[in-house]
Amino acid sequence: MSSRRQSADGAADRVAVIGASMTEFGQREGEWILDLLAEAGLECLADAGADAGDVDHLYVSNMASGEFEGMTGVMNALAHDLGAMPAYTQRIDQTSSSGGAGIYAAWQSIASGASDVTLLVGGEKMTHRTTGESTDIIASVTHPAEYKHGVTLPSFAGLTARNYLERFDAPRESLAWVAAKNHKNGVDNPHAQFQKEVDVETILESPIIADPLRLYDFCPVTDGSAALLLCSEETAREYTDDYVVIAGVDGATDTHVVHEREDPTVMGGVVESGKGAYEMSGYGPDDIDVAELHDMFTILEFLQMEGLGFAEQGEAWKLIEDGYTERDTGELPINTSGGLKSKGHPLGASGIAQGVEIYEQLVGEAGPRQVDADVGLCCNVGGFGNCVITTIMEATR
Amino acid sequence: MSSRRQSADGAADRVAVIGASMTEFGQREGEWILDLLAEAGLECLADAGADAGDVDHLYVSNMASGEFEGMTGVMNALAHDLGAMPAYTQRIDQTSSSGGAGIYAAWQSIASGASDVTLLVGGEKMTHRTTGESTDIIASVTHPAEYKHGVTLPSFAGLTARNYLERFDAPRESLAWVAAKNHKNGVDNPHAQFQKEVDVETILESPIIADPLRLYDFCPVTDGSAALLLCSEETAREYTDDYVVIAGVDGATDTHVVHEREDPTVMGGVVESGKGAYEMSGYGPDDIDVAELHDMFTILEFLQMEGLGFAEQGEAWKLIEDGYTERDTGELPINTSGGLKSKGHPLGASGIAQGVEIYEQLVGEAGPRQVDADVGLCCNVGGFGNCVITTIMEATR
Repeated sequence: MSSRRQSADGAADRVAVIGASMTEFGQREGEWILDLLAEAGLECLADAGADAGDVDHLYVSNMASGEFEGMTGVMNALAHDLGAMPAYTQRIDQTSSSGGAGIYAAWQSIASGASDVTLLVGGEKMTHRTTGESTDIIASVTHPAEYKHGVTLPSFAGLTARNYLERFDAPRESLAWVAAKNHKNGVDNPHAQFQKEVDVETILESPIIADPLRLYDFCPVTDGSAALLLCSEETAREYTDDYVVIAGVDGATDTHVVHEREDPTVMGGVVESGKGAYEMSGYGPDDIDVAELHDMFTILEFLQMEGLGFAEQGEAWKLIEDGYTERDTGELPINTSGGLKSKGHPLGASGIAQGVEIYEQLVGEAGPRQVDADVGLCCNVGGFGNCVITTIMEATR
Repeated sequence: MSSRRQSADGAADRVAVIGASMTEFGQREGEWILDLLAEAGLECLADAGADAGDVDHLYVSNMASGEFEGMTGVMNALAHDLGAMPAYTQRIDQTSSSGGAGIYAAWQSIASGASDVTLLVGGEKMTHRTTGESTDIIASVTHPAEYKHGVTLPSFAGLTARNYLERFDAPRESLAWVAAKNHKNGVDNPHAQFQKEVDVETILESPIIADPLRLYDFCPVTDGSAALLLCSEETAREYTDDYVVIAGVDGATDTHVVHEREDPTVMGGVVESGKGAYEMSGYGPDDIDVAELHDMFTILEFLQMEGLGFAEQGEAWKLIEDGYTERDTGELPINTSGGLKSKGHPLGASGIAQGVEIYEQLVGEAGPRQVDADVGLCCNVGGFGNCVITTIMEATR
């Protein structure tokens, strides 16, 4: 989508990630957005061996602290609480892909030379609201013309899932396989909201939410925060040998009015942002060793696998059936963290938590979830694919 | 605060502004945030002779469309309405300095090479809410510890004004001079909310809001939008000869808890962001020919003049008395646009509208407001100086 300027001495100008953290995701009773952001931010600084005083830019990915909690200015409050003044702060909102947008913004802050060290912290506090209130806040991301007619994101997901299953002759169980796989992976993630396996039968018998999708096709409502610390590769070496490099990152929109899309099973934002990230990195789909995809709804894992070139259109479900995306035995493990499905989805945190998982995989700190990987990808979906950010990270070990 | 990377062939890498626009500011009944953003965005593209298809990144500066209007995802809706897909979009929030933060983010997008052409549109729709509701939404930017005790931004302004007047032996009228000057300038701004002069007596007799500040010491509640189109200087030449260059830009926080500041008459964010912008540009206070300062409250014009080095501490009011900041006769005209005071303050638009005025002054399109200027400065204040962005632009004629 854009021709990025590459400096002559490419290596020195690459942007590195030198620290990563995430809080426990789940119901964090009595803790508020600022508590969660501060917890992840401090832990991330400690992980990198950095101080708050090192931070030039502090970016906060957060969709709706004003709507959820009546508190705005969280980025300034966080700078204060971390002791990072006079660090420049900004809140970044790209709905449910605010975290991915934060990675892109933080990358730009370093690559442009505006900041030497950028701390990116994302989070959302949601569970104190009823599911209805949360759904209303989230539904406000859709186009007014659709929103006013009562369309919410789960209903888009149901319509798309039906279209996909019928058109590509995929069994209903194939969606359940996604949920079962990601729940299985989440068992080994101590930060995940649900650290328990769920079998295909349970998923298929759970209550219908948006036909054909059932309760277990959806990610939960979650409180949580995650953080990454970014700097140039040159600066990175002053802190640590355990760093990864952002090899490619790009974002793209699709029509905001979802019903105007030509093919509801193709997410244009996934395709375009993936194309941009591949082009910038020099990698292609075959080079990716591990990926975190935005499984807010099970059907989205299919659409992203296809949009990113891991599978042909209509065939992602077959790869899942074949075990291609299994963590311990598959060729391309997907959502080793447990995904949004089992890990939870605190809107502003999710894209960053994807980055945390890929970072941990690439520096070899993923513990029981560890896979063999040199190149990892995250895909963070805003709205119903209204804007998508794809990031490719590379190990330096 | 940070050492910006400068490329060897500096000139080619400078970031240019090639188009600017603002809607009428005021009460825009029956029009909503998306209408206002689209109006400014389209006009800005037309001003530069560019198409929506040229736009790589579309940034929307907006503090609270969710709180004011129950609508989020405005950046994605705008990409759709402008026909700018698959342009990458992001919403930028830095409270009342969201516009300045947008300029900084757009600068980073070009300087990093992430985007070739970035359209920055900012706006806020506020007047459909009662003043009480608006004040509550805006007050949520302050620290929870202060907010819970009922402190709002006007009360901070009142406390600071009293401190300033008493400590520096400044007459109460000096604050009224700021309001009178900016109202006078606003008469010649066809986009301003109040295009009328207000005399010092009227100001001094207006109702008390936060002692010693009275009604006319405050900017109004406003609907409106403004936009800038940014690209590299090299790309700029493909569009137009009438462009300006962003010579310096930086942002900085101060303590979020206002009462923790050592000297309430010094805004650390103004000082630090100004220092960064001067350093990056190579200019100093004496080189600035025209400035737009964030006169949300009259007292803030004093504090910014002093923080940016235009006056010694406690002496800004004397410069205003001497006519130093008058538009037609002064050495350093301040708020030639009318400032927030007469132009209005639609939160997300204000910092961008400051940039629009400086752009128009530097390309010679300011009409009856035109002054002789090669270098201009904008200072956009978030919260009560919780985060501040200073931008310096340079003419290329």
